[in-house]
Amino acid sequence: MTASLPQPPYYAVIFTSQRTTVDEGYGDMADRMVAMAAGQPGYLGMDSARGADGLGITVSYWRGPDDIAAWRRHAEHKVARDTGRRDWYRHYTVRIAQVERAYGWHHDDGPADPRP
Amino acid sequence: MTASLPQPPYYAVIFTSQRTTVDEGYGDMADRMVAMAAGQPGYLGMDSARGADGLGITVSYWRGPDDIAAWRRHAEHKVARDTGRRDWYRHYTVRIAQVERAYGWHHDDGPADPRP
Repeated sequence: MTASLPQPPYYAVIFTSQRTTVDEGYGDMADRMVAMAAGQPGYLGMDSARGADGLGITVSYWRGPDDIAAWRRHAEHKVARDTGRRDWYRHYTVRIAQVERAYGWHHDDGPADPRP
Repeated sequence: MTASLPQPPYYAVIFTSQRTTVDEGYGDMADRMVAMAAGQPGYLGMDSARGADGLGITVSYWRGPDDIAAWRRHAEHKVARDTGRRDWYRHYTVRIAQVERAYGWHHDDGPADPRP
């Protein structure tokens, strides 16, 4: 399932990245960062996808900018980012955005457009 | 490469989706929608990734909410969404967000944190 979140407004951190071919340590660190982020104040959820071409998008959701900044200052998160720049990423972009509206659809809802 | 965009503020549409196993027509329609979106007023760029588990994230970037609404009303886009709910998607979520800050890093920049 994808992240199930409260009603907006809340914040999204959109992390778009291109991996190198270096895999050593990546999976363990990624799992650890996901678990650590989930324990931070203001964390709401996360979705992540990476295609066979190595381009990935991770969107994490947060209560507000202060929570995002606090996670960014976390010592282990800093180490992970440093290692990422050294080994795992070719390039990346980070965007901080305020989610204003959100809606979803599930197959069980039937075929109608959820926002006609 | 990932989307290269103007300075914020601008808008992001975060589309998180789970595919069914139905592939018929999907690739052609997805390519067509990417090409059509790129021709709409206010379109800034798009990034997309889908993992082997069928979870995908597409983020399209726009000048503002009116541009997003206009693309949503486009007749062929409506047909694509209808077909998507019938055949290609198990569930999806759409989030509209205002991008407030953005920064990037490329391997050629060297190892320093782009926002220390």
